[in-house]
Amino acid sequence: MPNNFTLNKDQLWSRRQLLKLGMTGAGVAGAAALWQILKPQTKSIVRVPSMEMEAPQGAANPMQVLRNFDYGTVKKENGRTIREFQLVADTSVIQLNSAVSYNIWDLNGRIPGPTLRAQQGDRIRVLFLNKAGHSHSLHFHGVHPSEMDGIRPIGNGKATIYEFDAEPYGVHLYHCHVEPVTRHIAKGLYGMFIVDPPTPRPPADEIVLVMAGYDVNDDSHNEYYAFNGLPHYLMHHPVRIYKDQLIRLYVLNIIEYDPAVTFHLHANFFDVYRYGMSMKGSEKTDVITMGIAERHILEFVFHYPGKYMFHPHQDAIAENGCMGQFEVVTENDPKNPTKN
Amino acid sequence: MPNNFTLNKDQLWSRRQLLKLGMTGAGVAGAAALWQILKPQTKSIVRVPSMEMEAPQGAANPMQVLRNFDYGTVKKENGRTIREFQLVADTSVIQLNSAVSYNIWDLNGRIPGPTLRAQQGDRIRVLFLNKAGHSHSLHFHGVHPSEMDGIRPIGNGKATIYEFDAEPYGVHLYHCHVEPVTRHIAKGLYGMFIVDPPTPRPPADEIVLVMAGYDVNDDSHNEYYAFNGLPHYLMHHPVRIYKDQLIRLYVLNIIEYDPAVTFHLHANFFDVYRYGMSMKGSEKTDVITMGIAERHILEFVFHYPGKYMFHPHQDAIAENGCMGQFEVVTENDPKNPTKN
Amino acid sequence: MPNNFTLNKDQLWSRRQLLKLGMTGAGVAGAAALWQILKPQTKSIVRVPSMEMEAPQGAANPMQVLRNFDYGTVKKENGRTIREFQLVADTSVIQLNSAVSYNIWDLNGRIPGPTLRAQQGDRIRVLFLNKAGHSHSLHFHGVHPSEMDGIRPIGNGKATIYEFDAEPYGVHLYHCHVEPVTRHIAKGLYGMFIVDPPTPRPPADEIVLVMAGYDVNDDSHNEYYAFNGLPHYLMHHPVRIYKDQLIRLYVLNIIEYDPAVTFHLHANFFDVYRYGMSMKGSEKTDVITMGIAERHILEFVFHYPGKYMFHPHQDAIAENGCMGQFEVVTENDPKNPTKN
Repeated sequence: MPNNFTLNKDQLWSRRQLLKLGMTGAGVAGAAALWQILKPQTKSIVRVPSMEMEAPQGAANPMQVLRNFDYGTVKKENGRTIREFQLVADTSVIQLNSAVSYNIWDLNGRIPGPTLRAQQGDRIRVLFLNKAGHSHSLHFHGVHPSEMDGIRPIGNGKATIYEFDAEPYGVHLYHCHVEPVTRHIAKGLYGMFIVDPPTPRPPADEIVLVMAGYDVNDDSHNEYYAFNGLPHYLMHHPVRIYKDQLIRLYVLNIIEYDPAVTFHLHANFFDVYRYGMSMKGSEKTDVITMGIAERHILEFVFHYPGKYMFHPHQDAIAENGCMGQFEVVTENDPKNPTKN
Repeated sequence: MPNNFTLNKDQLWSRRQLLKLGMTGAGVAGAAALWQILKPQTKSIVRVPSMEMEAPQGAANPMQVLRNFDYGTVKKENGRTIREFQLVADTSVIQLNSAVSYNIWDLNGRIPGPTLRAQQGDRIRVLFLNKAGHSHSLHFHGVHPSEMDGIRPIGNGKATIYEFDAEPYGVHLYHCHVEPVTRHIAKGLYGMFIVDPPTPRPPADEIVLVMAGYDVNDDSHNEYYAFNGLPHYLMHHPVRIYKDQLIRLYVLNIIEYDPAVTFHLHANFFDVYRYGMSMKGSEKTDVITMGIAERHILEFVFHYPGKYMFHPHQDAIAENGCMGQFEVVTENDPKNPTKN
Repeated sequence: MPNNFTLNKDQLWSRRQLLKLGMTGAGVAGAAALWQILKPQTKSIVRVPSMEMEAPQGAANPMQVLRNFDYGTVKKENGRTIREFQLVADTSVIQLNSAVSYNIWDLNGRIPGPTLRAQQGDRIRVLFLNKAGHSHSLHFHGVHPSEMDGIRPIGNGKATIYEFDAEPYGVHLYHCHVEPVTRHIAKGLYGMFIVDPPTPRPPADEIVLVMAGYDVNDDSHNEYYAFNGLPHYLMHHPVRIYKDQLIRLYVLNIIEYDPAVTFHLHANFFDVYRYGMSMKGSEKTDVITMGIAERHILEFVFHYPGKYMFHPHQDAIAENGCMGQFEVVTENDPKNPTKN
């Protein structure tokens, strides 16, 4: 089983190639279109409201993260399904607000990294190339042998392959595990890893929300917080969803330096599928406490149109950027004329 | 549906009128009496020990909060049950200890605000009058349309009406949602909102415990903590309960600035009904972790008389005031001679 | 019922006597041997890998804590099973790293104190002798009368007896409850208290992990963290476990000053038996949030050999010492030649 395998130079995937694959933060016309492209199993029964998106600038593009799933490239080897992902670590500068820029490490030009998605039982092959000027690694939450645990640092300019079975189904994550892990995570090297159950979940508008923090002055306290990479962005650019349609959130808390946060949804309650590791909800609430690296599936339906906030109820964290809102629109209005 | 509706001057409920209604911190002879008055569904099977209460001084009166439920005024409109509540925000000064006083915002002259209580399916109408010298609002946890979400600031001297259905049953809360929410909550604008299930829970001595913090020097860290408004009060004035009688706690954590606390009961275990949204307990424990805005029903019975502490097991929080104790007395002793 | 009963001088158990009983941090040849001695109910079906252990030096000996259960002395009185434990509080100095030593209070020469273990329904009798130069007490989590709650300070040189029934089954704890409780806990006066269910749990390799913190500069923030007493120790001295054998962790979070932590296991998932108070797992995950004084049973099996880390995912806490790893070895290799 290959590990720390250094690819030949001509095998190093260039940023240009990744751009061609549409895997970096390049401009997209709309999330819905992107979603259609990247989600092969799209159920026609689920509709996604059109949203005017600004041309993404740089690695942080919260809207693009929302409904973007990377299903990798599917191959057959010896009769077995292999799902191959390519992840390239690099450096970026993001703009946390008009005054504050911040140097991060990105994955495929994004923060958070791509939401990898597979079917339970697939063989996962992750080609990891480190171009980020520092040793890094990818540690996956999931079941795998010790040598695939992603603890070993991969030097700058080096590549490796992580290979393991996608099991069990659930909402997992991956992140760099090079010390100090706090810094390597807080600087951007994390993403969601969804393993779908053998029996598919009911059709739903599926949305990814990753909560993270930014410690811009290196005092081991976060000054800014974000859903999907940018402070306050999803508050000023509400996430459009359809009235009366099932919404399935995949929510991850990867805020370092704060012990735990809650996720709170306004004016509604959600069913909790803890860690996405059950087909049966465990509880209904509108406030769920999540320690670092906790992640859950939260399902709900809105029956009234309008705007509804979501945020941690650690209100200081919300006020410093971890804030968003849904805009519930009616499906029979083809233009969804409500403005963001 | 009326919103931001400014009542005519003669419709503004005066503090005097509220006082007449017994809805402010005015003196009461005993919690038991008050409880009888305010809890129409009182089951005669449940008895509450008599407790000598000091005449309440000011807005913080932990003992009064314990068993005091505001069922509002019930009306019929077009064949539908309307439950109408009146909430007035104002300013108070409370005495955290003999040396430290603190300016708060109160609701109906109380901190925490009244525990509103309704039946699932009732139409709730909250008449909110802001006399607190600053813009405020009431955001309810629950299901309601966007325009009833209580995000819009209501100016000083203005009033509004929030109207929505009481659903689903559970232990919810309300609080001001004007920014900075941290301050508006920490300064007192919060309360519990209980929606009773269609099938009543078994008879029990029902008790409200609200955990909150006080950041008296505005450094975004709490210096004091309290159950039901006053640091250490329920430690020095134990809550009398009967031996062998079912106790049903409604516990809310609304401590801002601390990510999470536990609630710990001494010498016993409780059944947890998470968010009060189930008729079936999910777990038994004596320590439950609660993020901000989490609230649960905890049920237990004491079989031995005596005093038993309860407090967060974040012991620094307990030591700074979030501390109380139950005094378990025997029912066949008509005088409950145990001294506080 | 005796309380605050001062034993005669000749009844005070000397450190020498405790040493004879092997209850202090005295040298042991190996954890497996010790485990055989102290665990009468050992199921022959469970095997424990041999581990070379350094001769323990001082009170902190993480390896000794792992599989060491104190079943006390069983007596019969009036036809009833009495399980008698002896706990002596004293002072020790431990070495947190090569540069930092720290004065602690120990119990039976250990930090954490002994893991007391009983059968549900046993009568528990704890003979507590305080030789630690300061007033202390033992507060047990469990069901017991008020006078057995361990709130009353026991002066230096004094002894007392706590006596109560072991109920209900679960993973409980005990700790000093003299104020400031934060200090008395953080300085070492805590331990696990396991009450076994009437129907035994399935055979498993049972392992105790206690997470605690050290605030060495008294600033109410922890500078160091540890599993079983010593920072980083179980990282440098991996816990050997067998491949394909059920592992049952008893995990306690007693880290003061941090509101909550998670426990994360690498490359695997575990079944959670919340508070050990159920025979049926409530959820499967690899990250569980635990407030202070929370404790759970976590069960898992490793199917691949190798080393696997475990740590809170509050990575700053892990990086400052609360870090360990399992080394999974194969059972058919009699020598377990994998090196630590």
